[in-house]
Amino acid sequence: MPLHFDCNATTAASEASIEAMLPWLGRPGANPSATHESGREAARAMRIGREQVAALVGARSPSTIVFTSCGSESTSLAFHSAALARPGLPTMISTVEHSATRKCAERSGEVVEIPVGPEGALDQGAALAAIARGPALVSLILLNNETGVISDLAPIGAACRERGVLFHVDAVQAPGKMTLDVEELGCDYLGLSAHKFHGPRGVGALYVRDGAPVSPLMVGGPQEAERRAGTENVPGIVGMGVAAERAGALAGSEEAQSEVRARRDLLERLILDQCPGTVVHGDPTRRAANTTNLGFNLTGTGMDAAALLGLLSAQGIEVSTGSACNATQAAPSPVLLAMGVNAPLAASSLRFSLAHQGTPDRSTIEDIERGATAVNEAYSAIAALADH
Amino acid sequence: MPLHFDCNATTAASEASIEAMLPWLGRPGANPSATHESGREAARAMRIGREQVAALVGARSPSTIVFTSCGSESTSLAFHSAALARPGLPTMISTVEHSATRKCAERSGEVVEIPVGPEGALDQGAALAAIARGPALVSLILLNNETGVISDLAPIGAACRERGVLFHVDAVQAPGKMTLDVEELGCDYLGLSAHKFHGPRGVGALYVRDGAPVSPLMVGGPQEAERRAGTENVPGIVGMGVAAERAGALAGSEEAQSEVRARRDLLERLILDQCPGTVVHGDPTRRAANTTNLGFNLTGTGMDAAALLGLLSAQGIEVSTGSACNATQAAPSPVLLAMGVNAPLAASSLRFSLAHQGTPDRSTIEDIERGATAVNEAYSAIAALADH
Repeated sequence: MPLHFDCNATTAASEASIEAMLPWLGRPGANPSATHESGREAARAMRIGREQVAALVGARSPSTIVFTSCGSESTSLAFHSAALARPGLPTMISTVEHSATRKCAERSGEVVEIPVGPEGALDQGAALAAIARGPALVSLILLNNETGVISDLAPIGAACRERGVLFHVDAVQAPGKMTLDVEELGCDYLGLSAHKFHGPRGVGALYVRDGAPVSPLMVGGPQEAERRAGTENVPGIVGMGVAAERAGALAGSEEAQSEVRARRDLLERLILDQCPGTVVHGDPTRRAANTTNLGFNLTGTGMDAAALLGLLSAQGIEVSTGSACNATQAAPSPVLLAMGVNAPLAASSLRFSLAHQGTPDRSTIEDIERGATAVNEAYSAIAALADH
Repeated sequence: MPLHFDCNATTAASEASIEAMLPWLGRPGANPSATHESGREAARAMRIGREQVAALVGARSPSTIVFTSCGSESTSLAFHSAALARPGLPTMISTVEHSATRKCAERSGEVVEIPVGPEGALDQGAALAAIARGPALVSLILLNNETGVISDLAPIGAACRERGVLFHVDAVQAPGKMTLDVEELGCDYLGLSAHKFHGPRGVGALYVRDGAPVSPLMVGGPQEAERRAGTENVPGIVGMGVAAERAGALAGSEEAQSEVRARRDLLERLILDQCPGTVVHGDPTRRAANTTNLGFNLTGTGMDAAALLGLLSAQGIEVSTGSACNATQAAPSPVLLAMGVNAPLAASSLRFSLAHQGTPDRSTIEDIERGATAVNEAYSAIAALADH
């Protein structure tokens, strides 16, 4: 059995989510735009999913939720909407954003990048100064996919509101790991992706504050209140709703968070004890409970994290060098570089991300011990090779 | 049991499609961008789906297939790509396009609209003349969703190639109803949607000829060879592949086509016999075997197809007044109006669309008879009401 320590890349849909989807997959006539009973039933099922997702983010009304096909679409929709509503103005992002945010910003025109400190914390002063200059859109990641660092975005949201600046929060990694509240965040847009929290692949959502501009990326039928054309993915939306409900409960459960934190901390400690010179990236006091990003001391070995990854992968231990969306690229993580990590250390870093108990990708204490042993043996093997 | 006579709006995923998807829904680590074994297995499954969809459209290479989330996204991607590659030039469409095509064209700038004849056939002379003036993109529907009329697009494709004009074919309704061949069509883009041919909702595809311009609608990770960012919908792609294989077989089976045609013809005959003055819209010699669009003579009743639809819907008989994407609008079908049907008759028309045997939405001869009886009784009831 493989050990799934790469749960920030994707998670398996939960049994409850699949069970909710199943009747809708093979159901005839389930086009929510159709006026017959099969169509109306589909529309009702979709309404429940919308309410569940709205509840997850603390939205006042289900109508603020636009269903999309993935996190990247949600991000692209927010940027597209802001660029059309506020043409010619720059976009403000941070140096540790997901590639979807970075690429969307570049496509929108001028980009102002706010740095982060060595522990991944956003430079709040620089951000507030940039907001005061009135960009079209501020887009920031709430829970970093690579380090698990959680940003304090409420002051950013408040400043954006005061200045009339649109604010997009990339919350793709957040569900199940922290409680979400769009009112507290003060955001106009907030993006989600179901497969990151044990919902199905192929469905995401964008929260859009009532009154915030929306220009559809895809045009055609009047679905999603003319914010996103295309026959709705009813099974996916139903599955996302069920997963959203569970993610909200997990985020609010100190027990669930402690349990995954204990496994993560054990993994971290066993590796730090055995692999001299290993460092933990990101502020340990502001990290999601499931994630650790470790920089290994491979100086002088002529090798980097790819060697560790290869040895672990061969034993069925699934980790990654950073964002799955960049996994096929050889370059060190831009997120770690932006935190001031030197290039060789960044290239020698691995992300471990765990799932909650009760999920198909869960790990036990024994799995953690087995995984840590494998990491330590791989590290020793590389060190031994270098000594020859 | 409802009678599903609205299968052009959506179909249920087949058992084979669902069975193929199931293992992927609950599978951990299945992010095809991840370099570990779970990721590589997901990439392999996706490769098979891509080959199956490529085979469905007669594409020379699986790399020509870009997976999307639906037909509207496929259309939007083709238009977005063409508009960026050939800025400032008009788009040519016909007067009987799906709303996605119409809205995408309007968004791209100047639109040249080619008329159709009274039976829905494209005015080939007008189309060729418009192509000679060098638009950026020609976009035409292959098999009309409302009437089932199949257009002869090979001469259009040849003219576009000769003139260096990009050519998009909206083939969303075609799979399972006719054989597709991108080489014969001579198109640069061809759009599909899985839920129209017993694949899952939430997944579509755009064929892009090797060398044709593509500018992603969604940016971010390098998925789909940088043509469409976002974690791939692996279960959806696997399910679409299986459905594509089946659709190709059905399209090529004279037996399957004859069987559905016999049911459609029976339904049509039983209604025409009992409802005086009913007309069949669209060229009967160039129609998909599963579709009939009937204009009822409701003159003097003060009622239109909405009344028929309501009476049928109450008995579990699912039909529609036209495109599901316009079903919530009260106006008569723009497609029928464009064919020269007068507004009252257009507003008194219903589309009946059937599924093949062996699918969850199939109908039997008895179902057809029951449906026709219900239609005839509803028609008589409306006529009787008007006589009072």
